[in-house]
Amino acid sequence: MTTQQLQEQIQTKKSFLCIGLDVDLNKIPEHLLATEDPIFEFNKAIIDATHDLCVSYKPNTAFYEAYGITGWKSLEKTINYINEKYPEIFTIADAKRGDIGNTSSMYARAFFKDLNFDSVTVAPYMGKDSVEPFLAFEDKHTIMLALTSNEGAFDFQTQNVDGKELYKVVLETSKTWKNSQNLMYVVGATKAEYFTEIRKIVPDSFLLVPGVGAQGGSLAEVCKYGMNENVGLLINSSRGIIYASNGTDFAEKARTEAMKLQQEMAEIIK
Amino acid sequence: MTTQQLQEQIQTKKSFLCIGLDVDLNKIPEHLLATEDPIFEFNKAIIDATHDLCVSYKPNTAFYEAYGITGWKSLEKTINYINEKYPEIFTIADAKRGDIGNTSSMYARAFFKDLNFDSVTVAPYMGKDSVEPFLAFEDKHTIMLALTSNEGAFDFQTQNVDGKELYKVVLETSKTWKNSQNLMYVVGATKAEYFTEIRKIVPDSFLLVPGVGAQGGSLAEVCKYGMNENVGLLINSSRGIIYASNGTDFAEKARTEAMKLQQEMAEIIK
Repeated sequence: MTTQQLQEQIQTKKSFLCIGLDVDLNKIPEHLLATEDPIFEFNKAIIDATHDLCVSYKPNTAFYEAYGITGWKSLEKTINYINEKYPEIFTIADAKRGDIGNTSSMYARAFFKDLNFDSVTVAPYMGKDSVEPFLAFEDKHTIMLALTSNEGAFDFQTQNVDGKELYKVVLETSKTWKNSQNLMYVVGATKAEYFTEIRKIVPDSFLLVPGVGAQGGSLAEVCKYGMNENVGLLINSSRGIIYASNGTDFAEKARTEAMKLQQEMAEIIK
Repeated sequence: MTTQQLQEQIQTKKSFLCIGLDVDLNKIPEHLLATEDPIFEFNKAIIDATHDLCVSYKPNTAFYEAYGITGWKSLEKTINYINEKYPEIFTIADAKRGDIGNTSSMYARAFFKDLNFDSVTVAPYMGKDSVEPFLAFEDKHTIMLALTSNEGAFDFQTQNVDGKELYKVVLETSKTWKNSQNLMYVVGATKAEYFTEIRKIVPDSFLLVPGVGAQGGSLAEVCKYGMNENVGLLINSSRGIIYASNGTDFAEKARTEAMKLQQEMAEIIK
C-alpha cells in the first residue's frame, strides 16, 4: 500500500485509528474457546465489527508466538482474512525485529512476502544495516521505534547524546538511510509533550502512536502536538477496544469503543 | 540450565563453541530438499556430527520465520531434538525480542515455556520493563545486545552519552535490574579491542560472541581480551561451519570446521 492510499483512507473514513489485535486466550469470551481457532474467531468478529471505523489493524506477534504453531496459524489466517475481505486496511506486524543485514532480510521476507503485511515495526539499536533490508521493499513501510510508551523509554531513549536525546539522534540518522521515505516511527502517546520536537525532525512522516487508553495517553494532546497537514498519525488502541466486554456482545462493545475514538477523530480532522 | 552446568560442560568438552543454526534453503545440500522437512534434516545431521565439539546451538528465528508455519515446525522439531537427545547443550533462541512489559512476558513464555529454550536474545532499546519479564524465569538466561558485530553498531551503540559510550550505559544500567544475575550479553568479535573495557563493567557475565569467521573476527583476539577465569565466553560460528560443504559430505565437513575451532579453544583453555 502506498502512503497516498493510506492518506485517502483516512480522509474517507474520517479516522486514523489503528486497532491492536493482541489476543490473550485468558481474556477473550469463554464461548469462543470451544471453537477450532479461538484467536482467529475473536479477531474475525472484531474486524467485521470495526473495519469501517479504523484504517489499520496491528497484531503484536508476541501474542501469537506465545501459542506456538497454533498461534502462527491464527496470525496467518488473520492477515489473510484482512487482505482478502478488507484490502483497503493498512496492516502492521508489530514484531519489533532487527538483526544483522542478511538476517533482517529474512525477517523482511517473513512479514512482507510470506505473510504480506503492509508494514512491520523494527528496533533501531543495531543501526543502518539492520533496518535497510526492510526499507528495500517497495510500497511496504518500516515503522521504527523512536520514543516508546513504556517507563523503560527513559532508560536509554532519552539519554543525552552530545547534547541531544538519543531518540532524536535515531530519528535524524534514519533519515539518511537508503529508501528512508518508507520509514514511519513509533512515538508513545504517554509522552505527548515530546511531539513538538519530533515534528521538527520528521514533519512529514507517519507516526504510530501506542499508549492511548489503557496506558493513559490522551488523544487530544497527541493530535495537538503531533498532527501534520496530512494527519500523519496512526493512533493505536488495543485493550480498550478489543476487551471492552468479555461476554457474547464483545464485538458489539468493541465497535462502540472504536466509534467513540473515530468520532473524536472525525471532529479533530474537521 | 544453570550457569554452573554450562561452565562444567565447557570444562568437560574443552570447548566454548556455539553453532548458529541459520538455515537457508538456498544454501543447503540439494539432496535434502527432497525430504519432508529439509531444514530439520539439515539441523539434525549438523547436530549429530558436532554435539561433542560445541556447548551450545543457536537457531536464529529469522531463518525459520521466513518459511512461515513450515519454518516454525522445523524450529520446534530442532529444539525438541536437542533437548531430548543432547540435554547437556545450552540452547539459545536468537530472536532479539523486546516490547512493553505484558508483551515481553508473552515472548518469554513463547521461548522459555512453549519451545523450552535455555536462553533468548533481547534488544535493550525499550529499557528495564521490556527485559525484566525475561529475567523472571529461574534457570533461564537472557542475552542482551550490548555491542553488536555489524557496521550499524557504530550508528547508536558507540554514541557518546555524557562522556560514556551507549553500550556501556546499557551494560551498567542492566546490572541494576531485578534478577540481573540471569543476564548475558552479545558482544561482536569484530570489535575485540572493546572487550577490555566491557570486562571492567561485567567481569563475571557470559558474553555471546558472534562475528568469528564469516564476519572477520579473530578467536585469539577475543579470548585475549574477553576471557575470564570461568572462560565466560560463548563463541558463535554459523556459516563457517554449517555451510563448509554443500555436498552429501556437509555434516562431515561441518565437523571438521567445528573441530578446528574446538581444538583452538582447548589450547586456549589449557
